[in-house]
Amino acid sequence: MNSYHSDLLAEAVEQFASLPGVGRKTALRLALHMLRQPAENVAHFSESFRRLKTDIHYCPTCGMISDDENCPFCNDARRDHTTVCVVESLRDVFSIENTGEYRGLYHILGGIISPMDGIGPGDLPIDALVERLSRGDIREVILALSTGMEGETTSFYIYKRIADLPVQVTAIARGVGFGDDLEYTDELTLGRSIANRQVFRP
Amino acid sequence: MNSYHSDLLAEAVEQFASLPGVGRKTALRLALHMLRQPAENVAHFSESFRRLKTDIHYCPTCGMISDDENCPFCNDARRDHTTVCVVESLRDVFSIENTGEYRGLYHILGGIISPMDGIGPGDLPIDALVERLSRGDIREVILALSTGMEGETTSFYIYKRIADLPVQVTAIARGVGFGDDLEYTDELTLGRSIANRQVFRP
Repeated sequence: MNSYHSDLLAEAVEQFASLPGVGRKTALRLALHMLRQPAENVAHFSESFRRLKTDIHYCPTCGMISDDENCPFCNDARRDHTTVCVVESLRDVFSIENTGEYRGLYHILGGIISPMDGIGPGDLPIDALVERLSRGDIREVILALSTGMEGETTSFYIYKRIADLPVQVTAIARGVGFGDDLEYTDELTLGRSIANRQVFRP
Repeated sequence: MNSYHSDLLAEAVEQFASLPGVGRKTALRLALHMLRQPAENVAHFSESFRRLKTDIHYCPTCGMISDDENCPFCNDARRDHTTVCVVESLRDVFSIENTGEYRGLYHILGGIISPMDGIGPGDLPIDALVERLSRGDIREVILALSTGMEGETTSFYIYKRIADLPVQVTAIARGVGFGDDLEYTDELTLGRSIANRQVFRP
């Protein structure tokens, strides 16, 4: 028998420990928390993940999730359908949406080119992006991928693929964060921030 | 619509955020991780908590969990059935078992007396402990509750209830931890550690 004297508990700990960033001690704490909850709460907890996985829809155009067939972005006439922002993940979409600064559409890659992880351009919906842009409604593509080698490789690959299309390709600005002190900003960021300086408009 | 543009995702985030120590950002990260897993892994994840809750057994004598009717401690003839260690929670049992220093039985209270949380002596299996001790097999009761007001109140209450029984009542030793520096030990611990000094046996 395992150190919990229960296969049921060991299994629950195992499942929690399989989550990213959750160690074995935390997993035990969470499993014991579950054990103390009313049965209906536990059933509700369990059910929510099963439903999330089985009932969610992915937009065939942009990759966004929704509870039904209607993509919250592609089907929203109030959004700007001439601009597409290319992001790595759903989480990036939520981050951008939280700023309230963007009203265009998205193209979620679901990953970036990473030879180390065996992810090539063919594994990402880049052909779909090219095809989407070829339809002619989109005037600007904003690249919002991570800096770092893999993100830059992916941005460059996409740029090469769409360079001949009548679409403006832009990238989000990089620089010293608002409220950040210059002395605590890394040199690369500060250097680029100086190189990419803009006309001051008070 | 919520900021995730999906009730399914919002619900999964909500459920993760209901776990102790899990904030909303982490909950989103975990929910998106779930979304990326194969459906059978998610089903397995969900099922493990439902089963933990519905199939687990609690020992009517000591409160320990087990996968069947047999308590791993009370039904183990190799353990010392004359000693009972009173602990607050299952987690304390695992901690004590991990030391390998204890071979007796347990009495899991499942909480401590806490007027603030509305937990009185009647809410804890203290009557059951008194009855268990009255049967006459047990010679020593080790109190292993937390220090702090509530733990000490509970220890004192139990002590008063069992003081007249022919049972020795002991408490686990408190003092400076092994490997701890005196200068970083709090004064209360260090003070008690001096007061409770023992004959040096090298």
